[in-house]
Amino acid sequence: MNFRKESLKKHGEWKGKIETVCRVPTDSREALSLAYTPGVAEPCLAIRDDIEKSFELTRRWNTVAVITDGTAILGLGDIGPEAGMPVMEGKCALFKAYGGVDAFPICLKTKDAEEIIKTIKIISGSFGGINLEDISAPRCFEIETRLKEELNIPVFHDDQHGTAIVMTAALINALKLAGKKKEEIKVVINGAGAAGIAIAKFMMLFGVKEVTLCDLKGVISEGLDWLNPAQKEIAKVTNRAHLTGTLKDAMKGADVVIGVSGPNCITKDMVKSMADKSILFTCANPVPEINPAEAKEAGAFIVGTGSSEYANQINNVLVFPGLFRGALDVRATTVNTEMMLAAAQGIADCVSDKELSRDYILPYAYDKRAHDRVAQAVSEAAKKTGVAKL
Amino acid sequence: MNFRKESLKKHGEWKGKIETVCRVPTDSREALSLAYTPGVAEPCLAIRDDIEKSFELTRRWNTVAVITDGTAILGLGDIGPEAGMPVMEGKCALFKAYGGVDAFPICLKTKDAEEIIKTIKIISGSFGGINLEDISAPRCFEIETRLKEELNIPVFHDDQHGTAIVMTAALINALKLAGKKKEEIKVVINGAGAAGIAIAKFMMLFGVKEVTLCDLKGVISEGLDWLNPAQKEIAKVTNRAHLTGTLKDAMKGADVVIGVSGPNCITKDMVKSMADKSILFTCANPVPEINPAEAKEAGAFIVGTGSSEYANQINNVLVFPGLFRGALDVRATTVNTEMMLAAAQGIADCVSDKELSRDYILPYAYDKRAHDRVAQAVSEAAKKTGVAKL
Repeated sequence: MNFRKESLKKHGEWKGKIETVCRVPTDSREALSLAYTPGVAEPCLAIRDDIEKSFELTRRWNTVAVITDGTAILGLGDIGPEAGMPVMEGKCALFKAYGGVDAFPICLKTKDAEEIIKTIKIISGSFGGINLEDISAPRCFEIETRLKEELNIPVFHDDQHGTAIVMTAALINALKLAGKKKEEIKVVINGAGAAGIAIAKFMMLFGVKEVTLCDLKGVISEGLDWLNPAQKEIAKVTNRAHLTGTLKDAMKGADVVIGVSGPNCITKDMVKSMADKSILFTCANPVPEINPAEAKEAGAFIVGTGSSEYANQINNVLVFPGLFRGALDVRATTVNTEMMLAAAQGIADCVSDKELSRDYILPYAYDKRAHDRVAQAVSEAAKKTGVAKL
Repeated sequence: MNFRKESLKKHGEWKGKIETVCRVPTDSREALSLAYTPGVAEPCLAIRDDIEKSFELTRRWNTVAVITDGTAILGLGDIGPEAGMPVMEGKCALFKAYGGVDAFPICLKTKDAEEIIKTIKIISGSFGGINLEDISAPRCFEIETRLKEELNIPVFHDDQHGTAIVMTAALINALKLAGKKKEEIKVVINGAGAAGIAIAKFMMLFGVKEVTLCDLKGVISEGLDWLNPAQKEIAKVTNRAHLTGTLKDAMKGADVVIGVSGPNCITKDMVKSMADKSILFTCANPVPEINPAEAKEAGAFIVGTGSSEYANQINNVLVFPGLFRGALDVRATTVNTEMMLAAAQGIADCVSDKELSRDYILPYAYDKRAHDRVAQAVSEAAKKTGVAKL
């Protein structure tokens, strides 16, 4: 099937992938008096006296805003807020289908970080959580950091953390099959944008000791003058061997190579140069860093991609519905590292030792049980770390 | 029934009067590839190339934002954005139940007019229309005027225009029963805030010649030094007899008195001083300007109120679902006077000559046929005036 052509046709038929429905009776004078005036004055006053009650008397407890500025939509780049809407609506549809979360898409007509932060703060009282989406680097770092500081509801930038969590879940199960320990492996990440840097940070929090990042210009190393601020920061804790050169150099002897970059930048020879039982996650979309079949021919032990066309799709759809479900269920005030690590482990645990194989390291994105498991793991972690209000 | 007590209980059970649902299949790899990646790239690119396509390929065509800053919620005043949410959610529930419109509530954490305008402009690309709600005067005038100028989707401040439209619908049918002509009547409006001024303006557009406004300080007359800017403006075209004094003075000989003010400010003697076959709309909530039974004892020919407890409820619930339905159906770029006049006439027309009586001048708010009729009238007016894109 030509998914893109067929999808355009379907979108024209669907005329929207989500809708808002009414949950209360409205068919009599009495019904109106309860759901609307005059009765509604009483819940209003109850919330005026205690804002927390907005989580009990309105839909806020279950509502998440999916917010973009349209600057980094899929691999399409800056296509504008209206054009980002099909992705945001799709995300909202999946939030409901897999997590039972009421998500609403908001596309912002501004690219100014301060305006984005201000706008989100101004509308935040209507929501129980904020999912930031497809906002280009480096603005996405500042926007997420500031909102996490200034709001007391969960704020989550999916392109960074959703990707990092699902990649780590894949790593957990791949290492199990390869019989390697996280503390002893060498990980190379190609692509030092928002996703690559987030993966590096998160894998180190998870327990990986040796991570090296590469970008188009080569290996990221402390002191290089072409690094942007986020790269400078991550260079302080990665590539402790102060390796220089290109991706080809970095891949020599690596146990794990993660691509969040562009098409066809990895050759069979480069795969051959990796350590024994090599793990390769080539997640560039729609064309991966190397064709999975070729990577296997070159000796890769496990190959995962971002696409549903191959085995082992590493898809952040596995993360956000359950993560927000879990956070909302206990009214978490933030999404912390422990909750994200619990989500990664929760995803990995969905594949039993019996099921686990080189071609099945992660549950399918449409497996509802996986999302339930993530939700439970995240709720428990929020409670343990004292950020749950319920 | 104690509606307020019962309503609080119900809100606690409902835990939200609206919810977002998923409209597309999500239960297989293929389904995900169509609704989400990789397929979704194609509708994104189609909208990038032609923003109008956002009305065809996403839910924008049917989506309205219901926006407040929480400063003038019901008769409760400035209770804050979160506390305004039960009213906004109620409104969204009615939008769907009566108009089939997907409405989403957004409560803003700012009272600054410029910030409100900016925020709404920034989020406007996600919506097919903007319904402003319970924003206090005089900021509501500036906010609506600016947004109408700067956006090319319908913007409607319900507290002003919804009220004016339904009041005019009631007037049309009341005049029919009283055998009076709109060009010949004297109308007095008590309450010179956003609603009162909007009613005055709209009734004059409708064809009423003689309108006089009163406020707590007395009759509004050109040249008075205590008038606010909006009152100064309306004083130029109302009270052409340059009457001074109080509401009591203004009511002498009036054919129609409309109260959008406070409780118990009209006495039986004041009603007695009105013209023959007097019409009284006492819409203060929850306690009207005069008890309807007393008004009738004092000789009022027709009495309407804002409450569902009495006959002739004059409720702007009759307006907004059909008005936006009609505007969205033809993708109107604005809500103009002709569309609003058509809505008023459409509501009035729902009561047949046979049904029309002193205790039944308007259809019930929960009568779905009334909303359909308003929608059709508004669509037709939009087409006639050249503001319909479809």
